[in-house]
Amino acid sequence: MKKNIAVILGDGIGPEVTQQSIKVLDAVAKKFNHEFHYRYCLMGADAIDKTGSPLPDETVTICLDSDAILFGAIGHPKYDNDPTAKVRPEQGLLKLRKSLQLFANIRPITTYASLHHLSPLKAKNLEGVDFVIYRELTGGIYFGKKELSDDKLQASDDCVYSASEIERIAHLAFQHAQKRRKKLTLVDKANVLETSRLWRRIVQEVAVQYSDVAVDYMFVDNASMQIIINPKQFDVILTENMFGDIISDEASVLSGSLGLAPSASVGSAVALFEPIHGSYPQAAGKDIANPVGSILSAAMMLDHFGLTEEAQLVRDAVNWTLQHGFVTKDIDAINSYSTTTIGDLVRDYT
Amino acid sequence: MKKNIAVILGDGIGPEVTQQSIKVLDAVAKKFNHEFHYRYCLMGADAIDKTGSPLPDETVTICLDSDAILFGAIGHPKYDNDPTAKVRPEQGLLKLRKSLQLFANIRPITTYASLHHLSPLKAKNLEGVDFVIYRELTGGIYFGKKELSDDKLQASDDCVYSASEIERIAHLAFQHAQKRRKKLTLVDKANVLETSRLWRRIVQEVAVQYSDVAVDYMFVDNASMQIIINPKQFDVILTENMFGDIISDEASVLSGSLGLAPSASVGSAVALFEPIHGSYPQAAGKDIANPVGSILSAAMMLDHFGLTEEAQLVRDAVNWTLQHGFVTKDIDAINSYSTTTIGDLVRDYT
Ligand SMILES: CC(C)[C@H](C(=O)O)[C@@H](O)C(=O)O
Ligand SMILES: CC(C)[C@H](C(=O)O)[C@@H](O)C(=O)O
Repeated sequence: MKKNIAVILGDGIGPEVTQQSIKVLDAVAKKFNHEFHYRYCLMGADAIDKTGSPLPDETVTICLDSDAILFGAIGHPKYDNDPTAKVRPEQGLLKLRKSLQLFANIRPITTYASLHHLSPLKAKNLEGVDFVIYRELTGGIYFGKKELSDDKLQASDDCVYSASEIERIAHLAFQHAQKRRKKLTLVDKANVLETSRLWRRIVQEVAVQYSDVAVDYMFVDNASMQIIINPKQFDVILTENMFGDIISDEASVLSGSLGLAPSASVGSAVALFEPIHGSYPQAAGKDIANPVGSILSAAMMLDHFGLTEEAQLVRDAVNWTLQHGFVTKDIDAINSYSTTTIGDLVRDYT
Repeated sequence: MKKNIAVILGDGIGPEVTQQSIKVLDAVAKKFNHEFHYRYCLMGADAIDKTGSPLPDETVTICLDSDAILFGAIGHPKYDNDPTAKVRPEQGLLKLRKSLQLFANIRPITTYASLHHLSPLKAKNLEGVDFVIYRELTGGIYFGKKELSDDKLQASDDCVYSASEIERIAHLAFQHAQKRRKKLTLVDKANVLETSRLWRRIVQEVAVQYSDVAVDYMFVDNASMQIIINPKQFDVILTENMFGDIISDEASVLSGSLGLAPSASVGSAVALFEPIHGSYPQAAGKDIANPVGSILSAAMMLDHFGLTEEAQLVRDAVNWTLQHGFVTKDIDAINSYSTTTIGDLVRDYT
């Protein structure tokens, strides 16, 4: 199989973790006789530094012309505490999501028995945790009209959703639920928000076509508790953009380290794969970042290509390293291995 | 001291938990020679059933004419899954917050050594946890313009903030931080939202007047992780309405039961005191609900009246019951006591 993969190394630890995934992908290609071609492009603070724009047009062109996108991380602290900065790294990612219509961000939440001791949660709360979050990614308050009054004393962000935006991701989430434990939980704030009431109505309508899937509805404030108190109850969670941002990061702590969690963003055209961790600038260049989130994102990409055996091999390799204590500093501060070493080990196992 | 207290029993378990607080307040009044007069008024599903309106005008009049408001809980499931219902219980609470300008919701997060075994978190993550959340309560997406298009296929909620709305709660939060460990964390999403950038700018400006308070800024997605991974790091958290709704409920799980957490909502006029739990309709009328959240809210009310000794006595009474295993079913499913019994024990100790 021949595949063109657009690679966006991005900011902070993005480059070093993504390089590990590429090593692993190359090993997979060799073993299974595939050809993966990488085309590097710019986004984020890195792109601002080099081109002045957080998302050069060339990046969009290359991405659209590829079979998948592998992305590292975005963000730089120099922009965060400057509320007046006009150009910001995150604009690049948001614009890419919008340009490619990556409307569904999929985040599987798994826990590893060998890492239960790391989780802030008691082991008994972690057993049997296995769910997936479908977060809407191209609508809501992220993309509504933003205004700052001329006197700079009033600001607004509009949150807008249309029925069709809700339907298309609802279908994906229901289809996934059918292949899993057949339960879908819509997380919203329908007791306050008009958009949430639209979500609830449309999901009720779509649900009719998936009568084998049990649906329940949960307010986001309650969901933020349930994810910690009783995470086993969830199978597929469906939610809007802003709530999904919050609860999917929250849920990622269950596994013991944010550094382990992968994600896929899919849409009508090409799909994007990225670890859910951020650019973690304090660790950049130190060869200490956890590459597992990126490597498991690459595994999701292989699945997306239909290469399920290859994807499983990569996951097995990751499990093997975790079980044998080959882990980065975030997981074991004393007996830790470098980013590169973990990448090498996963590659060699693969 | 003479005080007029407006009492809103509300929905679900609201009445039964609030009755326990009143018993305790009466004991305090007797012991310390105060006079507390209660005036009962309606709000929520209860008010809709009886008057057709979730917040009768009379309730607002009585509240404005009182020294404080003691409130139970709001909400009924019959409205939640009906996205087309025109009148909903929660509108009553939102309108009350707005009418009385209750712009700051204050939620202390404490953990109890005797209950560490109940928390989903490991005990080591709970030691030393003691922070307070200031949630803005009368602005943001809760109160912005809401629209549903004529064809019912598009909905929107506007999130608006003005500098003055941010300033007034920021001052309260900074003042509280000065009396505590002198640290304030603003939780926002300044990498995406214009309103968050306004929050960040105004908080930076207000901070200049509180140079003894260390300020940091945290994205809400990160905050939702940090509250679980490392809750000790927080002293005072300041945040906008929607983010505050989510992270304060999340934080309440640290103590082991949502049923324990109190809150105060303050503004320019009269203040309101309520447990943070909801109406929990499944438990209503069964005498099993935890009254501690309500009783500790009454203690916050006593503090608000300047009756600090009285408030401390109530808190001591609650601690005594918790330490001696006098707890409701949410805390100990096997050896549990009824709502009324806990109320009686706290009253008798007081
Ligand atoms: C970097 C930021 C804009 C982004 C988001 O909020 O969507 C990130 O937190 C994520 O979840 O991918
Ligand atoms: C009942 C609901 C409208 C309310 C809110 O979202 O503010 C509740 O969750 C709370 O936190 O007091």
